[in-house]
Amino acid sequence: MFYIGIDLGGTNIKIGLLNPDLTVQSKLKVPTESETDSQTVMTNLIAGVKKLLVETQTGSDQIKAIGVGVPGQMDIERGLSIFSPNFSHWDNVPVVQLIEDQFHVPTYMDNDVRVNLYGEWQLGAGKGKQDVLMVTLGTGLGAAMITNGQMMYGKSNSAAELGHLNMYRHGRPCACGSSGCLGRYVSARGMVKTVQEHLAAGETSVMSEWTQGDETKLTARMISEAYDQGDKLAQAVMQETGEILGYGLSSAINLYNPERIIIGGGVAAAGERLLGPTKEVIAGHALKVAREVCDIVPAQLGPWAGMVGAGVYAKQNSI
Amino acid sequence: MFYIGIDLGGTNIKIGLLNPDLTVQSKLKVPTESETDSQTVMTNLIAGVKKLLVETQTGSDQIKAIGVGVPGQMDIERGLSIFSPNFSHWDNVPVVQLIEDQFHVPTYMDNDVRVNLYGEWQLGAGKGKQDVLMVTLGTGLGAAMITNGQMMYGKSNSAAELGHLNMYRHGRPCACGSSGCLGRYVSARGMVKTVQEHLAAGETSVMSEWTQGDETKLTARMISEAYDQGDKLAQAVMQETGEILGYGLSSAINLYNPERIIIGGGVAAAGERLLGPTKEVIAGHALKVAREVCDIVPAQLGPWAGMVGAGVYAKQNSI
Repeated sequence: MFYIGIDLGGTNIKIGLLNPDLTVQSKLKVPTESETDSQTVMTNLIAGVKKLLVETQTGSDQIKAIGVGVPGQMDIERGLSIFSPNFSHWDNVPVVQLIEDQFHVPTYMDNDVRVNLYGEWQLGAGKGKQDVLMVTLGTGLGAAMITNGQMMYGKSNSAAELGHLNMYRHGRPCACGSSGCLGRYVSARGMVKTVQEHLAAGETSVMSEWTQGDETKLTARMISEAYDQGDKLAQAVMQETGEILGYGLSSAINLYNPERIIIGGGVAAAGERLLGPTKEVIAGHALKVAREVCDIVPAQLGPWAGMVGAGVYAKQNSI
Repeated sequence: MFYIGIDLGGTNIKIGLLNPDLTVQSKLKVPTESETDSQTVMTNLIAGVKKLLVETQTGSDQIKAIGVGVPGQMDIERGLSIFSPNFSHWDNVPVVQLIEDQFHVPTYMDNDVRVNLYGEWQLGAGKGKQDVLMVTLGTGLGAAMITNGQMMYGKSNSAAELGHLNMYRHGRPCACGSSGCLGRYVSARGMVKTVQEHLAAGETSVMSEWTQGDETKLTARMISEAYDQGDKLAQAVMQETGEILGYGLSSAINLYNPERIIIGGGVAAAGERLLGPTKEVIAGHALKVAREVCDIVPAQLGPWAGMVGAGVYAKQNSI
C-alpha cells in the first residue's frame, strides 16, 4: 500500500506517490491558479492526483491514505480550509471531502508548517528528536512545535503561532488585530518593509537602482544580493532582522525548551547573514540551561518537504 | 497505601499525609530556616515528616511514595536541587537521596510551579483539562504548562519559563543574564520596583507615608491597599503591570493555545485590579481562534496547593 502527499501551495500543487517506507516513488507539480477560485484549484488538485496515478499505473485501491498540507486557518477535524491568505475566492472549502469523494481513500489535512515539520521530523533535520521547533521564513513567519515526541496542537489547533509573538507594544500593525508581531519584522515581507522605512528616512542603497526607484519591486532576495555586494543598508537590515529573530527565538527557547530549531522557507537562504546575529542574541539572552541543549539547523528536505510531510502525516493517521 | 507531599518553601516546609484518593488526611508545617544551611533545612524537613508519621500513627511501610516540590534549578532525574534563590548555603543538595535514605520510600522531586499545577490539574482549577497554563505571581513569576494532557518539560526540564519572556529589548536587567524579562515587571518585586521608579521621578503616593520615606519597605500588598484608597500612583502601577501581563499572556496564548490559564501566588490576591487590564489587552491582542477557547481563573487549592500537588506527583510517578 502507498501514500499520497499533497502540498497545496500558492503557486504550485506538489503531489507525490510515497512508498510504504515513505521514500518518494514519483512526484509532479501542477499550477494552483490561486487567483481563480476554490473550485478551479480543487479541480487542478484532483486532476494532478489522477495524472500521477495514471503515470505510475497505480489504482486508488493501492493507496492507503492521502495527506494534504494547506496554508491558513482550518478546521482539521472537519477537513475544512476556512480561509487562506494565498487564495482568492476561498471560503470554508471542504478539501478532505472533495478528495475523498473522488478517490475513496481516507484523507487527512493539516496546516502547511506542521506538515513540513512531520516530514523533517521523520525523514530530515529532526530525525530521532523529541522536542523540535520548526520555523519557516517565507512571505510570513510560520512555526510548529513537537514537544515530548508529539506535535503540539493546543485547544483549537493554533499552538506555535510564533509569528504572533508580541515584540513591541506599539509596533507595525498586524492582520491579526494586534501590533508588533514577530512575523511583521522577520519574513520576506517584513524585511522589505524595513528597507522601505530606511529608504523613506533618506538612507541610500544599491537596491534603489535595481528597482529604478519603485520600491514596491523590492524583494528579500535583493537584500541578500545587496548584502553580498557590501551594501550598508542591506547589511544593517539583515543585522536588525537577525537580532529581532534572536529575541523571538530566545523567548521560544525559554517557553518550549527545544533540543533543535529547524529553519526553513525561502528566506532561510539568507543563511548566516541573517542567523549570525540571531545566534549572538540567543547566546546572550536565552536561559543558559535551555540554550545549551538547543542547536539551530537548516531544513533538509528542500522544496518538496511539504509534500513528503503530508505523506508522513497520512501514514501516521492511518496506522 | 498513602502518599506524602512536601512543599519546600522559603519560609515553611508544608508536609501532608494523603489518602489513596489524594484527599489530605493530616498536614503540618515546620519552619524552613532557609537562612541557615542545607543540612539544617533537610534536618527540619525529615523531622517534620517523622512528626507527621508519629502523629498519625503511620509506618513508613504504609507510604507508597513521597513527592517534593522545590523552587529553583534542579536535576530531576538525579534528584538534585542545584541552586535555589530562596536558600542560603545551598549547592547541589541531594534532596531525593537524603529522604530515601531516611524512609526507604521512593521519592520524586520537581519544581514548585509544576508541582502546584499537578495539584490544580488533578484536584483544583484544571480538572479535566488537556491544555492548561499555570502562572504563579509571587516574589517572581513562575509558570508551568500541560499540553495535550502531559506536563511540558522540554529537553532540559526548563520549559514554560514565562518569567523570561522578552518584553523589552533594553529593559530591566534580569539575573538570567538577559534584560526586559516579563518577571521583572509582573511580580511582587517587579511592581515594587515600578512604584519606586515612579516615586523617584517625583510622583507622590500615600505609600510614602506608610513607609515613612523608606522605599525598601514597600510591598505588593501595600500597592493593593493604596489602590483601594484611590491612590493614583497605585492605580497607574496596577494598570501598567496588568497590561504588561496581558501582552505576555497574549504571546503565551499564541504559542501554547491553552484552554485555561490558572493564576496563583500571593500577588494573585490583587484580583481584578491587576487582571482587569490584563484581560483587556488579551481581548485586543491574542489571536481570536486561540483566545476564544481560553479562560483565566484563579487557583483553587490555596496555600497548600504545592503540598497536595507534590502528593499527586508522587502518586503519578509510582503507578
